[in-house]
Amino acid sequence: MRIVDIIDEKKKGLELTKDEINYFITSLVNGSMPDYQASAWLMAVWFKGMTEDETAYLTEAMLNSGERIDFGYLAKQIVDKHSTGGVGDKVTITLIPLLAAAGIPIAKLSGKGLGHTGGTIDKLESIPGFNCNLTIEKLKEQVEKIGVAIGQQTGNLTPADGKLYALRDVTATVDSLPLICSSVVSKKIAAGADNIVLDVKYGSGAFMKTPEKAVELARLMVKTGQKLNKQITAVVTSMEEPLGRAVGNSLEIIESVEFLKGNIVTGDIAELTYDFAVIALMLTGKFLDENTARSYLQELIHSGQALDKFKELIAAQGGNADVTEDYSLFEQAKYKIEVPSKKSGYVSKIDAYNIAYGCKLLGAGREKKTDSIDYSVGVFLNKKTGEKVIEGDILYTIYANSEDKAELCKKYCDDAFEFSFEQPEAIKPIYEVIKA
Amino acid sequence: MRIVDIIDEKKKGLELTKDEINYFITSLVNGSMPDYQASAWLMAVWFKGMTEDETAYLTEAMLNSGERIDFGYLAKQIVDKHSTGGVGDKVTITLIPLLAAAGIPIAKLSGKGLGHTGGTIDKLESIPGFNCNLTIEKLKEQVEKIGVAIGQQTGNLTPADGKLYALRDVTATVDSLPLICSSVVSKKIAAGADNIVLDVKYGSGAFMKTPEKAVELARLMVKTGQKLNKQITAVVTSMEEPLGRAVGNSLEIIESVEFLKGNIVTGDIAELTYDFAVIALMLTGKFLDENTARSYLQELIHSGQALDKFKELIAAQGGNADVTEDYSLFEQAKYKIEVPSKKSGYVSKIDAYNIAYGCKLLGAGREKKTDSIDYSVGVFLNKKTGEKVIEGDILYTIYANSEDKAELCKKYCDDAFEFSFEQPEAIKPIYEVIKA
Repeated sequence: MRIVDIIDEKKKGLELTKDEINYFITSLVNGSMPDYQASAWLMAVWFKGMTEDETAYLTEAMLNSGERIDFGYLAKQIVDKHSTGGVGDKVTITLIPLLAAAGIPIAKLSGKGLGHTGGTIDKLESIPGFNCNLTIEKLKEQVEKIGVAIGQQTGNLTPADGKLYALRDVTATVDSLPLICSSVVSKKIAAGADNIVLDVKYGSGAFMKTPEKAVELARLMVKTGQKLNKQITAVVTSMEEPLGRAVGNSLEIIESVEFLKGNIVTGDIAELTYDFAVIALMLTGKFLDENTARSYLQELIHSGQALDKFKELIAAQGGNADVTEDYSLFEQAKYKIEVPSKKSGYVSKIDAYNIAYGCKLLGAGREKKTDSIDYSVGVFLNKKTGEKVIEGDILYTIYANSEDKAELCKKYCDDAFEFSFEQPEAIKPIYEVIKA
Repeated sequence: MRIVDIIDEKKKGLELTKDEINYFITSLVNGSMPDYQASAWLMAVWFKGMTEDETAYLTEAMLNSGERIDFGYLAKQIVDKHSTGGVGDKVTITLIPLLAAAGIPIAKLSGKGLGHTGGTIDKLESIPGFNCNLTIEKLKEQVEKIGVAIGQQTGNLTPADGKLYALRDVTATVDSLPLICSSVVSKKIAAGADNIVLDVKYGSGAFMKTPEKAVELARLMVKTGQKLNKQITAVVTSMEEPLGRAVGNSLEIIESVEFLKGNIVTGDIAELTYDFAVIALMLTGKFLDENTARSYLQELIHSGQALDKFKELIAAQGGNADVTEDYSLFEQAKYKIEVPSKKSGYVSKIDAYNIAYGCKLLGAGREKKTDSIDYSVGVFLNKKTGEKVIEGDILYTIYANSEDKAELCKKYCDDAFEFSFEQPEAIKPIYEVIKA
């Protein structure tokens, strides 16, 4: 078998065999194939795609390229949740303590975010002392003890994905459905859960620009899960405007805590968190009726059990759980700039990408892995789509550590808002749920 | 400017600017761009092609990536000839002394062949003592002194092409018209000639399988020459069956000498050599009438002047010119196996690829640059397409140094031949001539 022939076949649009895909991934990981052959193959895949079988073979080969976490008897109960990433997306943070409070063990591995704002790990690490640098042993131990743990993805799981992703990033081959699918699904399966809920986003702030493309990816992921004997439910959700009102690391934790306290009962964050939690409860067979599951979850919020679980999680990972009661314990931004609306009417659109870019300029995200992140900065949307606004009302608030950066950020945020005379139709957060 | 954006643009089928292409080639040569980005870009080019402008920019950028030979006042007269490579193609060897005898200075740079049989350099080096390892200075000196020199392509000319070609070879991106065009044309222009004759082959033994594809490549090359102010004539020729009767290094030199002695007056080798020589004479403005040019060239053969020039060339480059009179001075193969025909009729086809593969098995070519070559082995076609054969007639002769290898070679050669009851139409060696 020769790598150049495997590239040539893919280039011609032929279907690769399981052996060929295994050989490719093995050669990638053991270093016998140079990167320049891998990247030529990636570009050929970008153009020619992969069949469902090929995608499953690739996912399996990546899965087998490294360690897999074995939760033993817990695996069947454990739920893992993954999002393809969105602006202001803190649903992982609201969902984890809620599910753990419901008795569903959660073991979540995340990567550090590369993008306009931080990833889940960065957001949690904005809590003073919170540490996601857990060994697999410590992660397991904590799940058994308190039912929840969140760690940083290590290089030992799916090293093939690590290598391929690094190449895709610099060769313009990130936006390929089979490559995204195999990357996400292999990582999730390696992390040991039998039940996986995937949030596949579309819109201006997401990779997939249209709901149709997101549905295509979601179907492929569910199908790949089936072929590898894992239960995957994929939820296609809108990322046309930022999720919730807070964008920025500690700001998003505060909003999550507000939800867990029962202070946020409507809107996208509440809807998505409950919907995902219901899906997870049904997936594990704990509930058969959606409404019962939903009432149970609401009770966990109102009784304070979900918030308590979050505090337990924070404390278990070295963080100061008092932040949930006293937000001033977070690192504070130097400037808080409330920006008034120049128009009256209804907010008809808030472009997620523009808000994200504004936050990046403030220092909320990183471009390179080695960049440091400013946890305290971000943007709070005082008005969201569908809400009425009168000229002079506070439209949004910038949290910044430099006036110059705030000024730059303001330009992008101003551009993000659109207005209409009539109240626009609300965007439904969930577009479609795809089950196996 | 970022390389990843240049890859992304090409992937989307956008036209790259001159600056972008220059940046890409500069980054390739100075090593600031890793090979894995170059190969992803090559694959995107394979899929999306390049416009004529892009192809010319790429050719120019490769040209400017290294040294260029400056022949000074001679440049306008000098003719260079290049073939995209074919089985049994010794037309460069027959043409060079003929043109030099006609007073047209020839400075030819060739690469060592990678393929089923050796390249022009390998064939010439089958002459005991012949040395193609000339410095540019020595090459110029020899052209001024005896009007002809043949050297080995060095790394100082178009290093960008050297790097790109090495990558294309292992990433299944060799067969791309703009990449082939820029590679060939940049090398030829860097070699210093103002007049260039290109032999673009099609057929089973060539890169381009159809004449249409070869014409497309030929047009692109002529157009690229125009954009860079060089006179290029491209001749599309058939490579359905091997050229001439000899395939293998020293065997091809012997056949070339037979032509120069005037012993081969019909058939593809004679036709192509005369046609190319006429084109070259017209290109330099030495003759305005084709028939006069042709008669003059025939006279150079019959008078022995062309052969004398070949002997002069051999001697000038350290070879033993006596081989032209005594073929036993060549390294000799241990076995000479005459294979009789099992059928009667007319030869209707000789598959060039099969014959080439047979010769490769004998050791006539190399796969890696470091492989050594067996000069003495090869196949002689006693019968060619259109010729009558009676069962038991010698169909072809194998020259080998191992009986086992000869046996393997015979399988491929037997498969190469097809027969018919009626005399087939002769293949015209020249399909189309494309001038600026």
